[in-house]
Amino acid sequence: MTEKAFVRARRPEHKRQRREALLAAARELAVTSGVRNVSLGGVAAAVGLAKSNVARYFGTREEIYLEIATEEWRDWEAAVTERLRDAAGPRDVVAALAETLAERPLLCDMLGQMSTSLEHNVSVGSARVFKRAVLGVVARLGARVAEAHPGLTEAEGVELVAAGSVFAGALYPVSNPPAALAELYRQDPDIAAACPPFLPTLTRTLAAFAAGLPLMREGGYGGPSLGATHPL
Amino acid sequence: MTEKAFVRARRPEHKRQRREALLAAARELAVTSGVRNVSLGGVAAAVGLAKSNVARYFGTREEIYLEIATEEWRDWEAAVTERLRDAAGPRDVVAALAETLAERPLLCDMLGQMSTSLEHNVSVGSARVFKRAVLGVVARLGARVAEAHPGLTEAEGVELVAAGSVFAGALYPVSNPPAALAELYRQDPDIAAACPPFLPTLTRTLAAFAAGLPLMREGGYGGPSLGATHPL
Repeated sequence: MTEKAFVRARRPEHKRQRREALLAAARELAVTSGVRNVSLGGVAAAVGLAKSNVARYFGTREEIYLEIATEEWRDWEAAVTERLRDAAGPRDVVAALAETLAERPLLCDMLGQMSTSLEHNVSVGSARVFKRAVLGVVARLGARVAEAHPGLTEAEGVELVAAGSVFAGALYPVSNPPAALAELYRQDPDIAAACPPFLPTLTRTLAAFAAGLPLMREGGYGGPSLGATHPL
Repeated sequence: MTEKAFVRARRPEHKRQRREALLAAARELAVTSGVRNVSLGGVAAAVGLAKSNVARYFGTREEIYLEIATEEWRDWEAAVTERLRDAAGPRDVVAALAETLAERPLLCDMLGQMSTSLEHNVSVGSARVFKRAVLGVVARLGARVAEAHPGLTEAEGVELVAAGSVFAGALYPVSNPPAALAELYRQDPDIAAACPPFLPTLTRTLAAFAAGLPLMREGGYGGPSLGATHPL
């Protein structure tokens, strides 16, 4: 074997390792500092690469996080699936969704940044892989939710799962305020009292939504909705 | 009157005009390009000021938008109050909240950026003025919602109004996708079908939440929630 052939054969494995190292560094930085505070240069520096060299592995910072988000969605799917095995009825189903989200601050942080930041500045191909993965998770979990909660149809189960991810993304940054708000809450306890705590608020909101969903069937509120697959 | 005295007397009015011009320019740029794409330099340039001179009027880009958001919340309050005058029952209340939000894309854009961006990089004083204004609007509208919807308590009315603003902020950037997603939706209609349209989805989500809220009273789901003023 010539040295050139050896280098060629080694390259894909080497490239894969670099890719994994970049994903691991981006994940670690996001856990430590919050997704919004991580730059592509920061990720590159963490693995000892020049920012320009990251382009061989990922197009943008956001494409890195879409891939990490896909891993996190699949991890969440596994956890909810496990929890739903023993679930019986509405309360267990809502607890399974809300508590597994509360246990995953990185996922919730990314959910909160998704539509306003992480889905921007990405290639159509990256967006497609991510969206297909998420829709798959939501469809499978929706079916399992409907099995564990006889009061919901499969379509309503899908809506509940989608709502869980949307509410979690909206609540997480509210429940985890930036420095100026944290200081304001320290100075003004009456304002702090209006800051919703993550798990109790997510649980109550999802529980009310789940209880109300079946009541929409005859109310003329059918049609497009969170997780709907057939809009107007 | 000396010239110096004249300049001094003129200054507060001049400063107020500059401030108004900066607010108007920031508003106009946000309407045209989306809040996330507007920089402090862009706002300064739009009124012919150097970026460094803006510091006399506003500390940061985010402080400008907190002030515009306060104006938008008050404008929304007036619109909902007007709509609720003729409202009778759950359907009218939900329509009043959802439709007035759909008519206010700038408010919805800012709601979607609030906790992840616009509440960062601001002074404690700016955050206080903003939060007190918003809590006032939510409290007053919550009371009016409960008057128009006899099935809800005032506290539940407050929750519904708060949920409306949170859901609208979460849905708006999903329903108005960035370029890569818009292209993906054009290429893959099955993925596009899962993108929730703003007004129907907001209406259905709020209607289900409002229908479920009273069912939580005996369900042990009381306590902290969206818009709660007394957390655990």
